[in-house]
Order: sequence, then structure tokens, then C-alpha cells
Amino acid sequence: MSAEFMRRAIALGLENVRTGGGGPFAALVVKQGRILAEGVNCVTTTNDPTAHAEVVAIREACRNLGNFQLTGCDLYTTCEPCPMCLGAIYWARPSRIFYACIAADAAAVGFDDAFIYDELRRGHQERRLPMQQLLREESLAIFSLWKQLENKKRY
Amino acid sequence: MSAEFMRRAIALGLENVRTGGGGPFAALVVKQGRILAEGVNCVTTTNDPTAHAEVVAIREACRNLGNFQLTGCDLYTTCEPCPMCLGAIYWARPSRIFYACIAADAAAVGFDDAFIYDELRRGHQERRLPMQQLLREESLAIFSLWKQLENKKRY
Repeated sequence: MSAEFMRRAIALGLENVRTGGGGPFAALVVKQGRILAEGVNCVTTTNDPTAHAEVVAIREACRNLGNFQLTGCDLYTTCEPCPMCLGAIYWARPSRIFYACIAADAAAVGFDDAFIYDELRRGHQERRLPMQQLLREESLAIFSLWKQLENKKRY
Repeated sequence: MSAEFMRRAIALGLENVRTGGGGPFAALVVKQGRILAEGVNCVTTTNDPTAHAEVVAIREACRNLGNFQLTGCDLYTTCEPCPMCLGAIYWARPSRIFYACIAADAAAVGFDDAFIYDELRRGHQERRLPMQQLLREESLAIFSLWKQLENKKRY
């Protein structure tokens, strides 16, 4: 754990707001004391709703490593990850997360992080975004095929 | 709602497994009865842990629309979205989600979807992935700057 890495992330976040690069968030991926990748929020400048700081940093770090896993890495982020980013972090499997602000701080300046956390805790029927199931039996054929596949690359 | 769109997604998912493209998942974004974008899981072939079918389809649909919002669109996915993808869907704000299999079906063939849902429901201290807070006060400066910013592009 290093406050210096978080200070670097905070500096990137401030710069991103000042330069109009996007939302007020930045993140770093660190491995063995070295910054592997830096990311800032660029949703509005790249027309990519998934371009949150953590996702940008994870994608860049994986590209740099040539691997889809961040084993042994730490992730530093200026705000508690939203559910999308926390999900991305779980899939990338770093060792630790360091965060500065909390979801309620982001909510206080107009971001949906806390709302989305609430939604995910609800059952499908109670969510604001309608979810409807269809063709489960037909779709299970994909998983059956996957199960039979030899030498598959798991993730 | 159209079973035909889901059948198209199922066909893409089967093809992705058969050709070794990646995990057994596919998704579509549909607007006004027309397929805007298709996505298949390509985590292992692109070294991108965020390249789930839904994220791939959302990014492509937004690129095609030149917009970071999927207003009025439907998302079809061969499996209930994992927390990362569901978060991405909330940020992209389509109108409806149609899904086929459920998270438990994905878990049954070795995927972490259900595990990550469980983790997100836990408090920070109870999660398997350690989360530690530092420098919240310093980082709040980014949100203060954002709050003062005029003509900001919200998302």
C-alpha cells in the first residue's frame, strides 16, 4: 500500500476534469511497486459507457501484460468502484483494491453508483430496468457445447 | 420482444464456442426492430477481462450510434448479465433486457457470475478481495472541481 500511488491517481482525476477529458475519476494498476497502467474516465469523449477509469486501467494493464488476469497486481482508484467496475475487477483478479472516496460521495455529485448498487440488490421484478426471460432451454445448448469442449481456455 | 433476436444470439454463442472465439455467451443490441450490434465473449482471445458479450455489444452499438447512451434500445443476451455487464447496461441505459439462461446455469459450467453477485452483496470487510480505503479527503477535491465545472457533459 502506498499513498503515493493514490496521490498519482488523484492528480490524474483532477487533470481529467480540468482538461474536459471526462468524469472525475482515475485509477492505476500497480505491480511490484511499478505502475503498469493508468486510466481516467472517458465515457463522454469516446462514446463508450464502459470507459470508467478502472475499466480503462484494467484493459490497458492486461494489454501490457499480454494476459487477461492481473494476478499479483493492486488496483488504486479515486472512488469506490461502481458495480460494473467492481465486477470487472473480480474478473481480472488482482490481489487488492485501494479506494479513496465512497459511492455516496459520487452520488452526491450526480453519479448513479449508489443507485446501481441498490438495483443489483433487488430481485429482477423489483428493478427499474425491465428484465424478461425467454428461450432458456434453447440457450442451455451453448453451455452443453462448452462443457463438452476439450482444451478450452477458462477465465 | 422477439424470439428471433434471441435465436440469433444463441446461434452466435454456439458459433463462438465451436470456433474457439471465447466463452459461451453472445448478446445483441436492437433498436426499432433492427440489430445495431452483436457481441460475443472474447476475453481469452483479446486478453481483455471486460470483453464479455454484453460489453462488446454495448461498446459496438454506442460506436455505431456515436452516442454513449442506448436510449430506446433492447439488449438480448444468452445468459443473465454478470454484475459487470449489468452495471454496464445500467450506465448505457437501454429500455429493456431479455435474457435466456440464469447466473446459476453459468456457475454450473464454471463461471464466477453467481460468486460475484454474492460478493457484491457483502460488506467490504466480508469480501474475499481485500478493499482498503485511503486519502478520501484529498480525493474529494476531484468531486469539488467537477461540481464547480460549467458546461460539463453528464452521463
